[in-house]
Amino acid sequence: MSEPIRLGIAGLGTVGIGVVKIVQKHADLLAARAGRKVVITAISARNRAKNRDADLSAYEWADDPVDLARRDDVDVVVELIGGDSGPAKALVEAALANGKHVVTANKALLAHHGQALAEAAEEAGLSLRFEAAVAGGIPVIKALTEGLSGNVMRRVSGVMNGTCNYILTRMESAGLPYEVVFDEADKLGFLEADPNLDVGGIDAAHKLTLLAAIAFGTRPNFDAVMIEGIERISIDDIRHAADLGLRIKLLGVAQMTGRGLEQSMTPCLVPVDSPLGQLMGGTNMVVLEGDSVGQIVLRGAGAGEGPTASAVMGDVMDIARGLRLPVFGQPAKQLIDAPAGRTTAAKAWYLRMSLMDRPGALAKVAGALGEAGVSIDRMRQYGHEDTSAPVLIITHKTTRDAIDHAIALFGHTGVVTGEPVALAIEAG
Amino acid sequence: MSEPIRLGIAGLGTVGIGVVKIVQKHADLLAARAGRKVVITAISARNRAKNRDADLSAYEWADDPVDLARRDDVDVVVELIGGDSGPAKALVEAALANGKHVVTANKALLAHHGQALAEAAEEAGLSLRFEAAVAGGIPVIKALTEGLSGNVMRRVSGVMNGTCNYILTRMESAGLPYEVVFDEADKLGFLEADPNLDVGGIDAAHKLTLLAAIAFGTRPNFDAVMIEGIERISIDDIRHAADLGLRIKLLGVAQMTGRGLEQSMTPCLVPVDSPLGQLMGGTNMVVLEGDSVGQIVLRGAGAGEGPTASAVMGDVMDIARGLRLPVFGQPAKQLIDAPAGRTTAAKAWYLRMSLMDRPGALAKVAGALGEAGVSIDRMRQYGHEDTSAPVLIITHKTTRDAIDHAIALFGHTGVVTGEPVALAIEAG
Repeated sequence: MSEPIRLGIAGLGTVGIGVVKIVQKHADLLAARAGRKVVITAISARNRAKNRDADLSAYEWADDPVDLARRDDVDVVVELIGGDSGPAKALVEAALANGKHVVTANKALLAHHGQALAEAAEEAGLSLRFEAAVAGGIPVIKALTEGLSGNVMRRVSGVMNGTCNYILTRMESAGLPYEVVFDEADKLGFLEADPNLDVGGIDAAHKLTLLAAIAFGTRPNFDAVMIEGIERISIDDIRHAADLGLRIKLLGVAQMTGRGLEQSMTPCLVPVDSPLGQLMGGTNMVVLEGDSVGQIVLRGAGAGEGPTASAVMGDVMDIARGLRLPVFGQPAKQLIDAPAGRTTAAKAWYLRMSLMDRPGALAKVAGALGEAGVSIDRMRQYGHEDTSAPVLIITHKTTRDAIDHAIALFGHTGVVTGEPVALAIEAG
Repeated sequence: MSEPIRLGIAGLGTVGIGVVKIVQKHADLLAARAGRKVVITAISARNRAKNRDADLSAYEWADDPVDLARRDDVDVVVELIGGDSGPAKALVEAALANGKHVVTANKALLAHHGQALAEAAEEAGLSLRFEAAVAGGIPVIKALTEGLSGNVMRRVSGVMNGTCNYILTRMESAGLPYEVVFDEADKLGFLEADPNLDVGGIDAAHKLTLLAAIAFGTRPNFDAVMIEGIERISIDDIRHAADLGLRIKLLGVAQMTGRGLEQSMTPCLVPVDSPLGQLMGGTNMVVLEGDSVGQIVLRGAGAGEGPTASAVMGDVMDIARGLRLPVFGQPAKQLIDAPAGRTTAAKAWYLRMSLMDRPGALAKVAGALGEAGVSIDRMRQYGHEDTSAPVLIITHKTTRDAIDHAIALFGHTGVVTGEPVALAIEAG
């Protein structure tokens, strides 16, 4: 048996403690599987005094996480601090500069700085792995980078933020408005410190950025993701969707189009009885489509102590077993800089807007749609008690460009109040 | 960039030709991802003259596949011949004896001889990989062996034979009897040369054997799998199930129980709207349950040129990238010899039998059930035109042992004709 592999863990929240528990509880099993012992030598967190659900007395303590990167008794730095700058970034950079492998759950850091960090890791011959950064316990990075490495990938899509899916599911099941369920989720500790990362779609977009880089051999380009959050989804949208046999999901899609790399993270409608439509609560689902393999669907818990710690340990075990791979599946210096593309695929759209209650208002909206080349499948005006009427339109299949054009034209009608909600209807 | 990795491919059916096509079509992409060229140097098949859908002129031909194992210009032998003995076994043994890595899609070979082959590979420091042997294009071996290696696995289950699922799906959708759909599947080329491998559940049981060995660290033990095929499932069973909101699936389950390792591959009933219930046609689904990760569900095509070749290439790429793992995830010599256990979990059961049309017949069946400790939830006798009446019983939750006891007692009643069909009702 080889020398033990020694971990330095920075960040002792639920995931960090989950990793500690696995290393302690399954020491023999991990050693049998890795061919060497997996041990923790040093740890770091913001607050040493905090009471934690694990015995940490055997580990060296570092007040400054970056100290872990400088220790001779650490082979792998496990970064579970989070955030795209500050100590997390400093620690990962220092680890790679000091010859330490890195395992991280930090999607924000990699979505923003993945290119530079991958180049640094590869130049030093080190592993930088991030299974826990995407879709919790689902081994999707491994499936895409390794299992499907014989494929030209066509499309990667999925629901990758459990908090958004929890909020949308709970709004429907309890019939509660967005604001009430948001507060519930906050009290349950489901939201990031900056909740906009979750409900604004940013966290999910970070994840999509990483999947797209691997799938299409492109430099991670978070800024090119078209992002819409779920903040403007009303209980009425949920109900209208249900009437149509549809459900609202925050859906990420990445695909290479003739115009470049399309990356979008937006609320969409999917059939209630489709695999995505049936995805309830905090569960994640990722769909990988390759030219040989066809469609592979992966489902599992998207967050939580156990699932995320499981993903971290998968990476640790790979490093312990000697696996060395380029960070994004091929050398970072060879990744291409793809232009941001938008799909020209035609879809049916759901439009919900408020219309001023005056004669000819509906005709003006219909006219704007016609001018943009969007034809109407169904339209419904709801009863109302104030001066503006809720109007729901389902279009025939049309492009996102045409919908955006129509929405711009609505602004000139003088009868549409507020910003319309526009949701693509996907196959699910 | 390192030296090219050189493949010798034995077996040029759909999967073998699929592998050739990927290597030819994606040469640059594979090289970028592996850090070295992936090339084919030699091939072998039974019939050299056969017209195949690929240009094979650049490759050395071997009439005897075992010759591939002796060639200096082969690093990896890709065994796609099939069968648990004969040339496939001879080739794999010779390859490992001659210092060649092996990639195979051969579930029968590994289910029967996996222990000896794994020991041979590990003693020689070689890779023996078999992603394509289980669930086609789904990277389930990788997920279980690597991604979830931080988990104690609790249960592995799933639908792993696309042909059986096709037959059951088609019986329901077209309302056709088993025999007719079997003949259809045969004409479509969906059946193995020995169709009992498919419809008898043996092929699926081979796959389950391999998953169980990895999941529970046990020596592959195919003989301990409780196997029932789908040959006795009638169109009436399909219809009765549909009336109950259920669907019949050939379901594999492996779990470590207090009594040992349970492995079963049997037709079961699952709710129509459950993930397994919605699995139609040739699609496979595998459910992996670990102590940290919870439940991970993987779905994809279970067979076919592209998906299976994708799995073969995943293994080839791993070897090209330098990944070296124990065959079943931990050293073969450390795998334990678990006794065959049977679950004591209580489930509801579906029983269908033919009853002789005489007074007191139903009472005798009810009495036998009572004696076995099985209580009846619902019972229905169908109209009939001959001397025996079809009877359908749904039990309250009970053990497999109790059901087997009841069925044994039916034999003594003198009123049950033929062998009853007994299907467990699972959560799906």
